[in-house]
Amino acid sequence: MSVTAPQGFEAAGVAAGLKSTGKPDVAVVVNRGPLKAGAAVFTSNRAKANPILWSQEAIKDGTVEAIVLNSGGANCFTGSFGFQTTHQTAERAAELLGVSAGDVLVCSTGLIGTGDETFRARVLAGTEAAIAALSPDGGGAELAIMTTDTVPKTSVFHGDGWTIGGMAKGAGMLAPGLATMLVVLTTDAVLTSEEADAHLRAATRVSFDRLDSDGCMSTNDQVSLLVSGASGTTPDGDAFRAGLVQVCADLAVQLQADAEGASHSITIEVVHAATEEDAVEVGRAVARNNLFKAAIFGNDPNWGRVLAAIGTTSAAFDPYDVDVWMNGVRVCTAGGPDRPREEVDLTPKETDVRIDLRAGDATATIRTNDLTHDYVHENSAYSS
Amino acid sequence: MSVTAPQGFEAAGVAAGLKSTGKPDVAVVVNRGPLKAGAAVFTSNRAKANPILWSQEAIKDGTVEAIVLNSGGANCFTGSFGFQTTHQTAERAAELLGVSAGDVLVCSTGLIGTGDETFRARVLAGTEAAIAALSPDGGGAELAIMTTDTVPKTSVFHGDGWTIGGMAKGAGMLAPGLATMLVVLTTDAVLTSEEADAHLRAATRVSFDRLDSDGCMSTNDQVSLLVSGASGTTPDGDAFRAGLVQVCADLAVQLQADAEGASHSITIEVVHAATEEDAVEVGRAVARNNLFKAAIFGNDPNWGRVLAAIGTTSAAFDPYDVDVWMNGVRVCTAGGPDRPREEVDLTPKETDVRIDLRAGDATATIRTNDLTHDYVHENSAYSS
Repeated sequence: MSVTAPQGFEAAGVAAGLKSTGKPDVAVVVNRGPLKAGAAVFTSNRAKANPILWSQEAIKDGTVEAIVLNSGGANCFTGSFGFQTTHQTAERAAELLGVSAGDVLVCSTGLIGTGDETFRARVLAGTEAAIAALSPDGGGAELAIMTTDTVPKTSVFHGDGWTIGGMAKGAGMLAPGLATMLVVLTTDAVLTSEEADAHLRAATRVSFDRLDSDGCMSTNDQVSLLVSGASGTTPDGDAFRAGLVQVCADLAVQLQADAEGASHSITIEVVHAATEEDAVEVGRAVARNNLFKAAIFGNDPNWGRVLAAIGTTSAAFDPYDVDVWMNGVRVCTAGGPDRPREEVDLTPKETDVRIDLRAGDATATIRTNDLTHDYVHENSAYSS
Repeated sequence: MSVTAPQGFEAAGVAAGLKSTGKPDVAVVVNRGPLKAGAAVFTSNRAKANPILWSQEAIKDGTVEAIVLNSGGANCFTGSFGFQTTHQTAERAAELLGVSAGDVLVCSTGLIGTGDETFRARVLAGTEAAIAALSPDGGGAELAIMTTDTVPKTSVFHGDGWTIGGMAKGAGMLAPGLATMLVVLTTDAVLTSEEADAHLRAATRVSFDRLDSDGCMSTNDQVSLLVSGASGTTPDGDAFRAGLVQVCADLAVQLQADAEGASHSITIEVVHAATEEDAVEVGRAVARNNLFKAAIFGNDPNWGRVLAAIGTTSAAFDPYDVDVWMNGVRVCTAGGPDRPREEVDLTPKETDVRIDLRAGDATATIRTNDLTHDYVHENSAYSS
């Protein structure tokens, strides 16, 4: 299993009754060492769930023994009772594992405002059951973190004597500053927690942070990297970072492909921007434009909506010197019509939009989805 | 008719073949004076349509003789040919009216990229026909500016010896920095162009600029105020501004009520903010949150999505000291659950969300709509 592909990790997922469907909803990943290094990045939303508030403190010493994750309830805006639930979860896991509670990270996902006594009891019982079920094959941990995900998301990268594994969940609220995304990454490479932190921030910056499915930022996002060092191999820094970027990008694409209700996976490539920040700003503005997203759903190559979205940014560009391609067809040259829109075939799920700002040499790629009837339906009928 | 309710104005709307439906699509409003003062505000989108580029220059001297408006084509991203079309439109109107082309404003709305020779010929012919049809009863000008609007929008305010009239169109892309919105306001009060400009900016700031239906900013927005002075009455400044705010707010609510595909008109009132800017930022963040908007469509009082949206702002607030009401029911107190969501009835079209930031004394109200199947349908099937 993905997070136990590297040596030194055990994991499990169990059903604790948090999901009304009876599906698995509590997962535990344990680092058996010898190293217990770790790093984590969190949602930039100022409204942070209790597990985020807890984990932000727990990660500060760079030591992570284990991580407990639940679906079926976000434990966000549940007051001090909710924070105590998170604290008790870490303590229960620590007690059973013989480690310090301050070295146990906690993640939750589900409906905001969910976190009552029943929730607490089930999370604690699930934590116990998952720890009892820990195994080197991973025990289906990736299934226990799913919410509206239709498929589990896992990825493995084999380096030169070391391995990176990862699992992710996220199907809605995929926006930067992460998404409603829980990701656990593991490696048996030998790294310090400072190195892990630097690699993790670099990798998420160009992967998860450039996935913007619906522009909505979650309260519960967390991406953690646990380092066991069990391979005994100290990796080349560049090689490790490249491997971590590959795992994160692979998981991000899986999240995009499974985004709630989406019928198109849209890749927006911005080229010849003055700066990378400009490229990201432009890509994100297009990715968040509901009119553009609805047009793609309708297989309408409406490049005017792309330009209107670019015009809302502060990026360096001349609106009358921009080129736009859609699925390889140059529909706009220098801010005017080029090839007829009839030439663009938007029926494939994979959709590419390329924007040339003619303002410099920087590039960025933002991934998003279209705005569909199913998106509206899932997010109106399903409380998440 | 609205824009001819004040003395000194004539208007007309004609069908020039720009709309495939054969409905009216070119309007002209003429100021017969004695004053010819005017002011205008424009989209803040950096991608501006040709009529915006023209009108921004034309308004600089504060003199406006007439305004020509067309639906059925935005004349945006149509290159220098498109700019010449706008220029020729102003010249044709000026010639027929015996005024300077530099005192004729031009507005266009419709599909971006539309502005070929056929478009030009029809706009010019329509301008001639509308001028020939000018009348003090307005001649249905408000009908000729409609696009996906289902009803015309007009408003009149009678002051003490003076009158303000207005017409508006806009049904999609209603976002700040205006919207896909064309508005013509007229008054027979005696005002200088500087006074008109100050009143117009103050009124749009708290009306049209706080209407954010779908977060998308248009390339063609223009709100103009034409001053004839024909009443001979110099108004009290505060009374005039209050009247203008009332007309603009009335038109803004009409635009909101007719927003493409919407099933709820949502009023987001932010109170006890540290500053008005904070209140606007918070209201706008909620208004643009697709998950919140889809929940309202589904009659789901999902206050967690309100808090998650507030958390993305830089406004002064403590996420655990915020109160939220939905249709009068206090669903969240101090960042925790209060009344059960079952108590909230979201079936009425009019929906009120009240957010208390407990951070100061400033207030702002943002108006938006829900995210519906019909919104997705209209904007995927209809190229605009």
